[in-house]
Amino acid sequence: MKSKQRTIKLVLAYDGTDFHGWQVQNDRRTVQGVVGGALAEMHKHEVAVTAAGRTDAGVHAAGQAAHFKTGLSGVPAEKFAPALNSLLPDDVTVLSSRHVSDDFHARYDARERTYRYYLYPGYPAPPYLSRYSFPVYGDIDLRRLNELAAVLEGRHDFRAFATSLEKEQSTVRTISCSVFFLQTPFIVYQIRGDGFLRRMVRAVIGTLLEFERSGGSCEQLTEIIRSADRDRGGTTAPPKGLFLHKVTYDE
Amino acid sequence: MKSKQRTIKLVLAYDGTDFHGWQVQNDRRTVQGVVGGALAEMHKHEVAVTAAGRTDAGVHAAGQAAHFKTGLSGVPAEKFAPALNSLLPDDVTVLSSRHVSDDFHARYDARERTYRYYLYPGYPAPPYLSRYSFPVYGDIDLRRLNELAAVLEGRHDFRAFATSLEKEQSTVRTISCSVFFLQTPFIVYQIRGDGFLRRMVRAVIGTLLEFERSGGSCEQLTEIIRSADRDRGGTTAPPKGLFLHKVTYDE
Repeated sequence: MKSKQRTIKLVLAYDGTDFHGWQVQNDRRTVQGVVGGALAEMHKHEVAVTAAGRTDAGVHAAGQAAHFKTGLSGVPAEKFAPALNSLLPDDVTVLSSRHVSDDFHARYDARERTYRYYLYPGYPAPPYLSRYSFPVYGDIDLRRLNELAAVLEGRHDFRAFATSLEKEQSTVRTISCSVFFLQTPFIVYQIRGDGFLRRMVRAVIGTLLEFERSGGSCEQLTEIIRSADRDRGGTTAPPKGLFLHKVTYDE
Repeated sequence: MKSKQRTIKLVLAYDGTDFHGWQVQNDRRTVQGVVGGALAEMHKHEVAVTAAGRTDAGVHAAGQAAHFKTGLSGVPAEKFAPALNSLLPDDVTVLSSRHVSDDFHARYDARERTYRYYLYPGYPAPPYLSRYSFPVYGDIDLRRLNELAAVLEGRHDFRAFATSLEKEQSTVRTISCSVFFLQTPFIVYQIRGDGFLRRMVRAVIGTLLEFERSGGSCEQLTEIIRSADRDRGGTTAPPKGLFLHKVTYDE
């Protein structure tokens, strides 16, 4: 008799510094590889683990969501978190684990994803902050940044901010929140949407910062979005300031 | 002709995780060794660098102070910071450098040192916070902790919180501020005084947390201080939550 499989949802935090992103790659240290390894150690066989967002190399997570299926009947769902943490390295932590419906899928069921980009105003940043933020120099006009950030809200084609698109991939996304706020000692950019293209958040923040510096207008930013031309978008900001902050489900 | 020597004061921040403390030890990676190495590279000869506080292995710094003497006449004092940062590894940063009086001494002239110990309430902490904080479980009574913390303020013999004392060393110190406060997501313990014995701050916070847990009274804490008996003090909290926050000079 096959034992009843349960689907378990994990919420994960990680320091992306020493990972080549979420997704398993040959011979490279990835979060999926490390978490999958811990699950395999618990189960004594390979266990597939799927995340909501395939974060890039160097990108951190405060609230990545993932799921796997387990036949281990003796382990209460909430005990997978401490069991996995005892096997995981210091730079990845399972914040919680719980039993969800059999057909739950961390990626396809995610309604919204929230990313945060941490900017450190001032130079130089102390080492324990520079690991998780990107420095910005001189005076920052937060009101101006927020005017520009608001341009992104709504349903748009974000092709101008996309890298390495898959063939035939839709580049239309809906952004429900795009805002800068102070969270001492950081300036935080938060963007929430139904999905993001590869490196889109880093291209967006790079572009917004360049616009703030150069005095570019909201109309010019709208024009870049409309152009759907990656060459007209700004530079891609480094991954170390970026966190996958939260993934939201209908539950 | 001997070129005129200048004394330069540095303010340093470091992530203590991968250092065996400030002070040079044979074959071990120390902050003094790494900063001294960068200074030697600039000067093409050995340069002695002296810090205000000889932080222990694993202890971090947000505002360590240090000084050295230089004969490099072509380098403006404030340019030592960026020059050193270009030579230093990622886990130590010179926040500022400036010219001070010839007889300035980072250790002997320090009027007060401020340490902060970061507590993370809740389990588990995400990796980018657990590297710099110590977890506390369950409900924390901040009012109670502050009643206990205030007992340490004033001039006392702190022998009950001292490890590896040097012979004939005075163990009397004056604490001007001992307080807990919320700084989301942390509970921070801040202690400021004219000086601290080896591992004293970690023994103090360990003791205060044990008292909060066990319901120990302020009178019992006073009695432990009076006993001057290290065996009656509490356990030593781990270094990863501790930061040398600031060093104050009359200037």
